[in-house]
Amino acid sequence: MNRRVAVVEKITKANDRLAEVNRALLARHKLASLNLMSSPGAGKTTLVERTVAGLAGKYRLGVVEGDLVTSLDAERAAAAGAESVQINTGGSCHLDAGMVGDALGQLPLADLDLLIVENVGNLICPATFDLGTDHKVVVASVPEGDDKPFKYPTMYRGVDVLIINKIDLLPYVTFDMDRFRSGVAALNENVTVLPMSCRTGEGLDAWLNWLGDQVVRTRARR
Amino acid sequence: MNRRVAVVEKITKANDRLAEVNRALLARHKLASLNLMSSPGAGKTTLVERTVAGLAGKYRLGVVEGDLVTSLDAERAAAAGAESVQINTGGSCHLDAGMVGDALGQLPLADLDLLIVENVGNLICPATFDLGTDHKVVVASVPEGDDKPFKYPTMYRGVDVLIINKIDLLPYVTFDMDRFRSGVAALNENVTVLPMSCRTGEGLDAWLNWLGDQVVRTRARR
Repeated sequence: MNRRVAVVEKITKANDRLAEVNRALLARHKLASLNLMSSPGAGKTTLVERTVAGLAGKYRLGVVEGDLVTSLDAERAAAAGAESVQINTGGSCHLDAGMVGDALGQLPLADLDLLIVENVGNLICPATFDLGTDHKVVVASVPEGDDKPFKYPTMYRGVDVLIINKIDLLPYVTFDMDRFRSGVAALNENVTVLPMSCRTGEGLDAWLNWLGDQVVRTRARR
Repeated sequence: MNRRVAVVEKITKANDRLAEVNRALLARHKLASLNLMSSPGAGKTTLVERTVAGLAGKYRLGVVEGDLVTSLDAERAAAAGAESVQINTGGSCHLDAGMVGDALGQLPLADLDLLIVENVGNLICPATFDLGTDHKVVVASVPEGDDKPFKYPTMYRGVDVLIINKIDLLPYVTFDMDRFRSGVAALNENVTVLPMSCRTGEGLDAWLNWLGDQVVRTRARR
């Protein structure tokens, strides 16, 4: 088992170096970027679709989609109007910085304002792999239950923006918003929490405004 | 990367040997057993609670709960009336046969009729680790969306029973039952599909009957 740990540490170190390469590339293009993570089915791809549509004519988006197999998500992002690349990880349960670096090589970075990397649907492994993006955004969803920050602390720790999606389902499920938010707050001092329904559009403006701020800030960097 | 693959293969082989040990132990006690897997928040623990309550006075249940941290789920299973053991995996995103073997040592196997192992909430990694249980049961949930069998084929392949939970939410979300079921059918010839709402209790009887059949069949084995 020692050998396994040693190998995993080696992989993580290699990942961190490749993440720095990505970070430098994104900085050179003054491109705001985020790593979008969640459980399977929390609504990441629908959020990407709404975001591309919501920022159309204002900002140009690049989307990197991570999935085990299929190009379903990249097709949805492209149909919404984004430049998109699909990564198929094969069996791997998370994106790593090397995969994202390869995908960046296929995007017209100089023409973009914002990059969204949609990770594989998984509340565990993606949290430990830095991709070189500016922000860590987690999409929670109401039907998943209010105990998730307590049970998946690695994912919920260090999150910059937490979207609580599917609030339109609140009347039909058991979900204690205060319990959920107190679990998130215990792990994070400065998290931006955005309740949202991608279905109805409620809360979407606050998200689009936050993204706009990041684009402006990133452009203003020396 | 070759080295990593070699190590992973070694771990899987060791896991398979320990799974055989568990299988032999469970067979000696004529104990029906299942490996319960799903995304985070699909409703595994609620299903365990309903199952323990539904079989109370008829069959005695043992529950092994897998989570990164906390004993929240084992407490819920115990409160419902099961003999329960919590495994905390630390960072690991799945249960393995060794962890389950340790947990079996803490359960009164001779007094039990049915063992439920509730895996870590993850639609990827748990699928590749045999725990030595008889049946692979996957809990899907309606809000996760109808594309999941296409995107997570490893989990949906070789499943014995597929529970489609939270059908009470069907009026409020976009979920094409035919698309979902055709995706599952393409991966499995002989899957038992059980639409269910753990919230309302709809569909629970079919599940309890299926479990009762497994208990009777396992007892009848030579």
